[in-house]
Amino acid sequence: MNILFIMYDQLRFDYLSCAGHPHLQTPNFDLVAARGMRFTNTYVQSPVCGPSRMSFYTGRYSSSHGAQWNGFPLRVGEVTLGDHLRDNGMACWLLGKTHMKADAKGMARLGLAPDSVIGARQADCGFDAWTRDDGLWGSGPDGSYDQKRSPYNEYLKSQGYDGDNPWADYANAGVDENGDMASGWMFQNADKPANIREQDSETPWLTSETIRFIEQAEGDWCAHVSFIKPHWPYIVPAPYHNLYGQQDILPPVRHEAELDNPHPVLGAYQETRVAEAFQQDEVRNKVIPAYMGLIKQCDDQLGRLLDYLEDTGRMDDTMIVLTSDHGDYLGDHWLGEKDFFHEAAVKIPLIVYDPRAVADATRGTTCDALVEAIDLSATFIEAAGGTVPGHIVEGRSLMPWLHGQTPDDWREVVISEYDFSVTPRCAALGLDARDARIFMVFDGRWKLIHFEGGFRPMLFDLEIDPNEFTDLGADPAHADQIDRLYGHLTHWGLRMAQRVTMSDADIAAARGRSLRRGIMPFLVDGSEVPPELTEKYRGRARQLFTDEPVAEELSHDV
Amino acid sequence: MNILFIMYDQLRFDYLSCAGHPHLQTPNFDLVAARGMRFTNTYVQSPVCGPSRMSFYTGRYSSSHGAQWNGFPLRVGEVTLGDHLRDNGMACWLLGKTHMKADAKGMARLGLAPDSVIGARQADCGFDAWTRDDGLWGSGPDGSYDQKRSPYNEYLKSQGYDGDNPWADYANAGVDENGDMASGWMFQNADKPANIREQDSETPWLTSETIRFIEQAEGDWCAHVSFIKPHWPYIVPAPYHNLYGQQDILPPVRHEAELDNPHPVLGAYQETRVAEAFQQDEVRNKVIPAYMGLIKQCDDQLGRLLDYLEDTGRMDDTMIVLTSDHGDYLGDHWLGEKDFFHEAAVKIPLIVYDPRAVADATRGTTCDALVEAIDLSATFIEAAGGTVPGHIVEGRSLMPWLHGQTPDDWREVVISEYDFSVTPRCAALGLDARDARIFMVFDGRWKLIHFEGGFRPMLFDLEIDPNEFTDLGADPAHADQIDRLYGHLTHWGLRMAQRVTMSDADIAAARGRSLRRGIMPFLVDGSEVPPELTEKYRGRARQLFTDEPVAEELSHDV
Repeated sequence: MNILFIMYDQLRFDYLSCAGHPHLQTPNFDLVAARGMRFTNTYVQSPVCGPSRMSFYTGRYSSSHGAQWNGFPLRVGEVTLGDHLRDNGMACWLLGKTHMKADAKGMARLGLAPDSVIGARQADCGFDAWTRDDGLWGSGPDGSYDQKRSPYNEYLKSQGYDGDNPWADYANAGVDENGDMASGWMFQNADKPANIREQDSETPWLTSETIRFIEQAEGDWCAHVSFIKPHWPYIVPAPYHNLYGQQDILPPVRHEAELDNPHPVLGAYQETRVAEAFQQDEVRNKVIPAYMGLIKQCDDQLGRLLDYLEDTGRMDDTMIVLTSDHGDYLGDHWLGEKDFFHEAAVKIPLIVYDPRAVADATRGTTCDALVEAIDLSATFIEAAGGTVPGHIVEGRSLMPWLHGQTPDDWREVVISEYDFSVTPRCAALGLDARDARIFMVFDGRWKLIHFEGGFRPMLFDLEIDPNEFTDLGADPAHADQIDRLYGHLTHWGLRMAQRVTMSDADIAAARGRSLRRGIMPFLVDGSEVPPELTEKYRGRARQLFTDEPVAEELSHDV
Repeated sequence: MNILFIMYDQLRFDYLSCAGHPHLQTPNFDLVAARGMRFTNTYVQSPVCGPSRMSFYTGRYSSSHGAQWNGFPLRVGEVTLGDHLRDNGMACWLLGKTHMKADAKGMARLGLAPDSVIGARQADCGFDAWTRDDGLWGSGPDGSYDQKRSPYNEYLKSQGYDGDNPWADYANAGVDENGDMASGWMFQNADKPANIREQDSETPWLTSETIRFIEQAEGDWCAHVSFIKPHWPYIVPAPYHNLYGQQDILPPVRHEAELDNPHPVLGAYQETRVAEAFQQDEVRNKVIPAYMGLIKQCDDQLGRLLDYLEDTGRMDDTMIVLTSDHGDYLGDHWLGEKDFFHEAAVKIPLIVYDPRAVADATRGTTCDALVEAIDLSATFIEAAGGTVPGHIVEGRSLMPWLHGQTPDDWREVVISEYDFSVTPRCAALGLDARDARIFMVFDGRWKLIHFEGGFRPMLFDLEIDPNEFTDLGADPAHADQIDRLYGHLTHWGLRMAQRVTMSDADIAAARGRSLRRGIMPFLVDGSEVPPELTEKYRGRARQLFTDEPVAEELSHDV
């Protein structure tokens, strides 16, 4: 079996027609859902690209792998999905974005050359790169955000787009009324068509790369196809730029009460530039149609890929996974971007198609179990025929659900984390870098948000308040729920996360072993153990050494 | 400055005359205490050799570095004291024991050759080995406990001791009345003199190695001199074997109440072979005098080393640290060995001599601050002139205390952990390997012991009950104290332990950087930022690409 592990960056859980969006039709996502299973309660381990992805790619919580924000390197030696799959005879390829930054200092300490196979895998979070393009080719007065080569920019140049950075100048820019560049970085330009042939834009390009990859792939493989879109810059080529208009925009999920004496950390997020932008109707009216157009383009390109798989017979031996690394507030809760724990940000779409007959019973169904992003690594290891190494991978395989079983020991809560130490909010809130961390514990109804740094928690009851307007964290009437969820958080905090060099089987095999290897410190006279353990010490005549005088200079004060 | 970081294995905190032992005179330990500072409340991060040492050698808690029991490999790439010191221009050498097991699988994954400098450091927990000898050369029907070469055994053979393993046959065995070997593995032989010339026994041998090391050492260095003794096998050469008798043994610190319906995990430890042995007076009467003799020998050899340092002027530029990796129950609390959290096991001696004038004010004093073993790595980094990398090293430098200052933000609790998954108790208690873990939180008065796996906690009040006889963990009257200490445990569990690739300075420097590197997703029209950030997007005429027709096959369902 092969695996197409497809990620759309910043795709909200509810911006698919199969998930209920009333105005955005996504027939190809829906088709995969109809042939597979849609998980309706799936949460990322961190609502921001880098740490969320490192959790997907390691199967471990953000504070377990430590790469807790964009650009925080994943520590050298951290075991990845690619390592696990290769151990089980499955190749693991990357096409597109990872947002991985190599631990250059750690690699240097271990003498790992970046251009070796091992070094390259360390630098690409365990993948072999078919084509890696992180898709954020910004540059400014202090240089470029990303120093790597951009295969996508190279492609654009080969197609006649000029300049150093056609990603910025064409794929993510329109043209204004004067014929000048209208950068997609500015929300005011989101309604313009990107100045690029649609087939040259990012989503079709990576889809073509994917087909090109599959055409040549041999053996069992997992391909992580990782689209930058519908992530910002919010601009999309024709015809997608004007498929949707103001009438297609859902009203913002927000309430005046959320602005009334908010929790200080939430308050700081309500005052960010992006939040203040999305609080403006004119921004939402320009951006959301572009966002929807980008998703529509993703859906069309998914259709193209599905057609290819169908035509080549690969639908029969390819598992398909459609998901995202986090959502997008789009003005909900007076916020933009992601970076907090409302459903719009922390919940993601997840659709899994397992081609095997064992999954027939669940086709077209949904599963509302609490799922975490880290479960995918575990699922893929099982798909590759392996056993999930539970001492490393903290997620759980979704195979039982996919095959119509209901595990009786499934998790009671999902955990997500957010480290904002690198953001200006850390300094603005007067926090030490190690205290700028937030944890979410959600049991399907109650959502506790814990803040390091001495703040009170937040609490939402999604049964009574599905829109998460009413923060109950300061309400003494809910102290019991808060205590209960803190109990889960305490237990999680003490989890066995770093004992990564010993499997449970290793441990079981080691039990009692030292005695039979001659470590026998606990014997009074040897009769406590079988004689074969002590016979070597019996009846062996010894030359005497103790009669030697003790040298004077060696004997202090005795 | 140089550092002599001297560790005695399994040396109880209270078996020194400067710490109050009434019958065991240790004038050389006392001399260092008189010239330095003695820390009277120092706790190991795990009361068993391997994980405790990995905490000393990384400056990190046991569940942070993950090598949670003897023989659990320290994960490849874990940053060690040696790495930190070398970064600050100080060599870091090993003489003696570490109990480190290399992460062979991790090293293979990263292509690290064990015989390379980098590979050897990975295999020796970051040290350069002057002489590594882990000192447990047991062998039995299933082979040898330790596969490495034993420099000490090689030395013994060079001195005329015969056989494959003179460590077992001479250094750790006496001779019985028939002239046959009387193995030190059996407690019944603990009163016999080891059948070895005293100067050839382990402690003098490693002391000689240390002097030999110092004689040739150049530049700044830290030498971890790590004696196996007074660790079992409990047998010592003449004249130390009969310096102490039954009259010198302190009565066991134990109470019948401890056997009355004990906590299930403690109860399991009370039933181990070693506990049942030490519950017998005849075992204590044989073993404790040998243990005291081993310590006396350590003291004498320390005197020899101090004389050497004095004679060569090295007392003026050498920091001396005397400590242990854990204690030894010796029958206290009906237990033997270590492996639990009473003071006898988890508290260690710590004496620090700083030769510099800045430490003059504290010479001969004691410090009762709550100190953790991980503080030594931080202290040594400062001694080497470095700044403690708080994103990696979780301990705190002791320099303020040594220099007469009182930090106003010192820790409120010490944490220690114990993972007994590999022991038969795990299976006997019906625990999953990941639940066989215990955590101690101690604030100087109240000691909470938390057990994973669903057990109630234990609680001791050392002010009222300094002998720790009365477990208050099931007493509702102390629920407030239990809650308070659980609050500390929760906070600790969420600590920032794995963000090891980004220092606080790295994070501060990264704040806001992406905007000036061209990542500008949050602009409505660009007026929000200085014009130099957006000027490249203004007034640049563009060739038009959007007029190109969209290829039919690329446009699904639009």
